[in-house]
Amino acid sequence: MSQLPRIVILGGGFAGLNVAKRLDKSRYEVHLVDRNNYHSFPPLFYQVASAGLDPTGISFPLRREMRKLRPRNIRFHLGEVKEVDAVARTVTTSYETLAYDYLIIALGTTNNFFSNPGLINDVFTLKSVDEAIRLRNEILYRCEKAAITTDEAERKRLLSFVVIGGGPAGVEIAGALGELKRYILCRDYPSIPPDDMSIDLLEGSDRLLRTMSEKASRTALKDLTNLMVNVRLGHVMTAYEGDRLTLDDGTELNAGMAIWTAGVTAVPFGVKGVDEKSFRGPGGRIITDDACRVIGHPEIMAIGDIGYFQSEKYPRGLPQLAQVAIQEGRYVADGLNGGGVFRLPFTYRDRGSMATIGRNRAVADIGKWHLNGFVAWVAWMFIHLISLLGMRSKLNVLLNWVWAYFTHNTALRLLFQGSPYPRRGRMHDKGDV
Amino acid sequence: MSQLPRIVILGGGFAGLNVAKRLDKSRYEVHLVDRNNYHSFPPLFYQVASAGLDPTGISFPLRREMRKLRPRNIRFHLGEVKEVDAVARTVTTSYETLAYDYLIIALGTTNNFFSNPGLINDVFTLKSVDEAIRLRNEILYRCEKAAITTDEAERKRLLSFVVIGGGPAGVEIAGALGELKRYILCRDYPSIPPDDMSIDLLEGSDRLLRTMSEKASRTALKDLTNLMVNVRLGHVMTAYEGDRLTLDDGTELNAGMAIWTAGVTAVPFGVKGVDEKSFRGPGGRIITDDACRVIGHPEIMAIGDIGYFQSEKYPRGLPQLAQVAIQEGRYVADGLNGGGVFRLPFTYRDRGSMATIGRNRAVADIGKWHLNGFVAWVAWMFIHLISLLGMRSKLNVLLNWVWAYFTHNTALRLLFQGSPYPRRGRMHDKGDV
Repeated sequence: MSQLPRIVILGGGFAGLNVAKRLDKSRYEVHLVDRNNYHSFPPLFYQVASAGLDPTGISFPLRREMRKLRPRNIRFHLGEVKEVDAVARTVTTSYETLAYDYLIIALGTTNNFFSNPGLINDVFTLKSVDEAIRLRNEILYRCEKAAITTDEAERKRLLSFVVIGGGPAGVEIAGALGELKRYILCRDYPSIPPDDMSIDLLEGSDRLLRTMSEKASRTALKDLTNLMVNVRLGHVMTAYEGDRLTLDDGTELNAGMAIWTAGVTAVPFGVKGVDEKSFRGPGGRIITDDACRVIGHPEIMAIGDIGYFQSEKYPRGLPQLAQVAIQEGRYVADGLNGGGVFRLPFTYRDRGSMATIGRNRAVADIGKWHLNGFVAWVAWMFIHLISLLGMRSKLNVLLNWVWAYFTHNTALRLLFQGSPYPRRGRMHDKGDV
Repeated sequence: MSQLPRIVILGGGFAGLNVAKRLDKSRYEVHLVDRNNYHSFPPLFYQVASAGLDPTGISFPLRREMRKLRPRNIRFHLGEVKEVDAVARTVTTSYETLAYDYLIIALGTTNNFFSNPGLINDVFTLKSVDEAIRLRNEILYRCEKAAITTDEAERKRLLSFVVIGGGPAGVEIAGALGELKRYILCRDYPSIPPDDMSIDLLEGSDRLLRTMSEKASRTALKDLTNLMVNVRLGHVMTAYEGDRLTLDDGTELNAGMAIWTAGVTAVPFGVKGVDEKSFRGPGGRIITDDACRVIGHPEIMAIGDIGYFQSEKYPRGLPQLAQVAIQEGRYVADGLNGGGVFRLPFTYRDRGSMATIGRNRAVADIGKWHLNGFVAWVAWMFIHLISLLGMRSKLNVLLNWVWAYFTHNTALRLLFQGSPYPRRGRMHDKGDV
């Protein structure tokens, strides 16, 4: 490629992709690294998990996005980031080492199990398309097993779901499970009494959707209760043994399947040549100055969920939202296109936040406005639809939604069981991501 | 359920699903068993493998099909068939044992590795949606690895594909790989010289598409050659070590990835109380009388690819085609609806056969007609489109095809890498299928 300054972008999410698109490719040689060959759309992961949407509807090949950019001075690299060397100015992935002049870290976050990392072996999670597919398969599999068994206790065990965490992801997946119980079981699985399915939602604080308005919290609680979800506020789990989950007050719940949405932490990677104390903030997030630059390393920027950008208005860092990632991405690209002259400081324009609890049920805070019910639900669908990349995906998702709305039904309850990989296959390939 | 005679159908493919739909549910209690919770569409597996279609576009939840049937005296059971006991009249699956009055075996076929069963660890196959997804992921992964490596020999190794078997599946996947080399590599993977990708197709006999007309064979050979596929007729493989595949004449080919489409055998299951010699025919197929009934067991019927129905016109059994399965399924259902009085003998109406080699390229034999090129290709698309279950799938597939045709591009080149299953998950569940 060219002899231009080299920008390496780590992560093809909202933040990284927006930098890549907006950077002036006649001025920089750009390299984008991601562990997947696609950009995905986290707000809709829960719909993949609940078989409402198809993984391909919310995943977009990064190479196809690259191909549209002119001049085409940009390259995609598949790989998991292992180490950044801030002195040698190199990044090492699972496959190769890349040199950089500017580095943009936009790796996002992954699940945080806090004091019990062992939970990763016990709970299901929802932080990637792969995790969502796994969730979908497990839920479908449990329904099939429950339809076969004649043992009521066994059936109740199979269909006991506990969602841990009352943020948007937890509320949305719990709502989707509530709709499964209320609308789908009786029609698709006539041999299962719907009451044999139980859904509990645990939230440590005193309200759901803590980052949203009180009104949104109340509405979400009401809607989930209507969907037969047992919401337990002010409780945390203390143990998960066998199929029993214990709460801090000693209550024991059936939990054949536990879904963890209770915390995130920065995607981990090694780093050399930085002062850890001034580099890592709360939750492993990377501390930046008011232009998203790493302290002491103006050639390294951290944006999106992994960046820790403090301001008077946001003393605990900017919220970890798509809008922040998108705006930071564009801001950083503009600064670099301007030869590193940044319009200081970066300021986040709050576009509001929303969550959906199910058919005709959603909540939205937009400035001083609080929407709920059908209006919020339509707004939610519209905003997510226009945010999807590519017309094909928009049509695909719209088709599925319209279909599901009028038929109260989805054609996507498909249990793909996978098949073992040949010796020679990817899964056994050394250096695999 | 009811006290009506109980019919158990093994397999929800073309044969089994057509019986299930057509049986008189006021006269029989019907149970359908399948290892997957969906019906799938084998003619388009190769398009999933080549990322032209989405698995959900060619897979249909069986429970949704059941739900449409009235009276709804039918039940679906997930499970892999382990044993049929023709004396006790029971079927044992991976999960349960079911009693039957009539048994319809429609389990189809799986890969046959003939004298070297160990090949299952070395080659990729295309006999199920899961296998097609695995193929797609491996092909995409090899392209990504090849785009990263700077070692030309390594790149050529990664991109050396050998397809074994020149039947429709082999011809279609080889054609799809040819299009990847010709149209996609240069645009999506600019760092890969297209000539570094090699595609060989091995066929033991002296022509491709042996079951079709000479004309179709010649056209397929010409079209594949245009797509830079090295077709090697009259050759079989004798060894596959490391990444080298050896032919009977000693030729050694690079084969980073070998795709086996060279043979099928009946899906295996145990059987008690039948005379093996009069039960099993060539390729493990189940020998039947002229009403698809097992010899000596008129209450057991075998239809579709697993049935071995001989006649003067077809001394080596009926061809293993969707049309045969569909017609046998309807025939058996009509016979049972008529109280076991069959219109003898079953006669197969040949609707012709076709194969597609790529964009604007296909061959079709319909009666005395031989179509090829664009006309055959459009006919192929039309016939497959109308054969898909459900309007949603038809629209989804049509949308993808139209999109791909005009943009010469697919949005489905997505490498879903999967994520390890929790201890508690399905994959570790005892008695899993």
